[in-house]
Amino acid sequence: MLISKIGGEFDLIKRIANKKMNDPRVIKGIGDDSAAVRYTRDKYLLLATDMMVENNHFKIGWHSPYQIGKKLMESNVSDIVSMGGVPKYALVSLSLKKQTAVEFVEELYRGLYASAAKHGVSILGGDTTRGGEYAFNLTLVGEAKKSLLRLRSGAMIGDLVCVTGDLGKSTAGLRILEKYKSLKPAIKKYIKKHLNPIARSAQTGRQIAKHAHAMIDVSDGLASEISHICEESGTGARIDWESIPISKTTKTAAEMTKSDPYEMALYGGEDFEIVFTASAKNLKKLRSCFKDFSVVGEILDKKEGIFIMKNGKRLPTGRGFDHFG
Amino acid sequence: MLISKIGGEFDLIKRIANKKMNDPRVIKGIGDDSAAVRYTRDKYLLLATDMMVENNHFKIGWHSPYQIGKKLMESNVSDIVSMGGVPKYALVSLSLKKQTAVEFVEELYRGLYASAAKHGVSILGGDTTRGGEYAFNLTLVGEAKKSLLRLRSGAMIGDLVCVTGDLGKSTAGLRILEKYKSLKPAIKKYIKKHLNPIARSAQTGRQIAKHAHAMIDVSDGLASEISHICEESGTGARIDWESIPISKTTKTAAEMTKSDPYEMALYGGEDFEIVFTASAKNLKKLRSCFKDFSVVGEILDKKEGIFIMKNGKRLPTGRGFDHFG
Repeated sequence: MLISKIGGEFDLIKRIANKKMNDPRVIKGIGDDSAAVRYTRDKYLLLATDMMVENNHFKIGWHSPYQIGKKLMESNVSDIVSMGGVPKYALVSLSLKKQTAVEFVEELYRGLYASAAKHGVSILGGDTTRGGEYAFNLTLVGEAKKSLLRLRSGAMIGDLVCVTGDLGKSTAGLRILEKYKSLKPAIKKYIKKHLNPIARSAQTGRQIAKHAHAMIDVSDGLASEISHICEESGTGARIDWESIPISKTTKTAAEMTKSDPYEMALYGGEDFEIVFTASAKNLKKLRSCFKDFSVVGEILDKKEGIFIMKNGKRLPTGRGFDHFG
Repeated sequence: MLISKIGGEFDLIKRIANKKMNDPRVIKGIGDDSAAVRYTRDKYLLLATDMMVENNHFKIGWHSPYQIGKKLMESNVSDIVSMGGVPKYALVSLSLKKQTAVEFVEELYRGLYASAAKHGVSILGGDTTRGGEYAFNLTLVGEAKKSLLRLRSGAMIGDLVCVTGDLGKSTAGLRILEKYKSLKPAIKKYIKKHLNPIARSAQTGRQIAKHAHAMIDVSDGLASEISHICEESGTGARIDWESIPISKTTKTAAEMTKSDPYEMALYGGEDFEIVFTASAKNLKKLRSCFKDFSVVGEILDKKEGIFIMKNGKRLPTGRGFDHFG
């Protein structure tokens, strides 16, 4: 049976993750941005991994090897930071081609090291092998103070749903690249956020964690991330269409490609922002040290369902980006 | 410049690993079977990762998805065990194809879980994505008692060089498969060790570690592993050709494919045995609890070089398996 037939990527994960775990040291296994296990008296060990494949997560000709290396690190950093953690150690696996130039690998590593240095990560090793297409995997080990670990499952009814920065920017850049094909100077500002996605810092993640009940990073679009939070927390949610933060650049890019910028924000991937839920009281406190977020909805009772309010009308949320959709 | 032009896979790794690490918690970074970092008072955290790519590490039609899953876990377990460690947690990344059947992924995971259960590993998550060819990555987190951590760099002049089990068996099976193409019943016994490679247990690894100075697993052939030990330990070594352990099955398979079984042992990959060096006195002690190993040579002063003695003649060791050779 095809993966798309059983419902796609997320349903596949549920199917293969059905084995019970008997390890009492495992706090969180499959089903969050990172796994969390007992570690020291006041810290959990966090483990995240992300694989990037040519023509799916990057495209030679669009992305430089330096940008590919950076993106590989940033996407994993985002998974650790969105749990309230601090990234520490990385392992890198590269499937290269027979004709790959040494300079390509050096540039890719220059990108990895640049991003690693920014986030305080040490690259401890990895594996290098050969295939017919580029496939790169990074595993990131981090740690989180026990009191700051934030899961998808922590949302509480009445929490406000928030998101850092603005959304849809990565998909907007992708649409521009698809339309204009080559990297013309005139389109540079629209594609920057697609080619150079940046994770939030561990400092920001921890500031949010101090005040939030649930956290998740935006890798498959706002609709998908809020669905994950609701599913894991056993709640419903309302998303207010008009409150979704979208930059002017993203809106212009959407116009240029005749797309809907809200669709990009709700269903596009890899913005690496953080979605979190918190009480109104705690949001006020958070604002005293971190302001770059918007309130986009509210956590509701499960029986209310998950929906988007647009012009006073209730719309279904639909699904996020799915590799097998 | 092509990777083969700078000397291949190992030279590429040296080139990209040239960044200094300032993290005092890192005991061993790039350049051993696993990375080791400070963890608790009496334990180090070990980190290993291995990527397997279609038509390079496995072949659909030869390997069942169950066997692929098992091999992915065993190859990583071998990296942890050969440091004196115990495997604990795994993260799995799969790059699947659009037309991949759900049953393929379930069988692959059945293999992963079977091997994980045997070695006491919990699978904590991973990443699932889509590409044009299968590429699978597993990261394994383990721990080692500080007193039992064994690096490639620990060999001492006068140590005897030993290897567990027998060598060349995986390559022998590969040669048979290449010659006979399909899985005929008559060739079954010759291909078993290629299709179902098995890592040594953590118990065996720790028994060896208690008595050994240096350890490494056999993933690229005996010649390559001994070269790694000598390079990291700053020593030379003699390998005694006639002492290399090779099973009758491997010898027959070599005859059937007109190959040299010693070449398979010295330069073939993925036997997942353990090469270790220890004093003669300690070997006697090891034999009281573990006997399945052979003495195949001796650690010498660096100025003697690394060489193979065959019929009283000194031969150069050559190199191990190289993905870019």
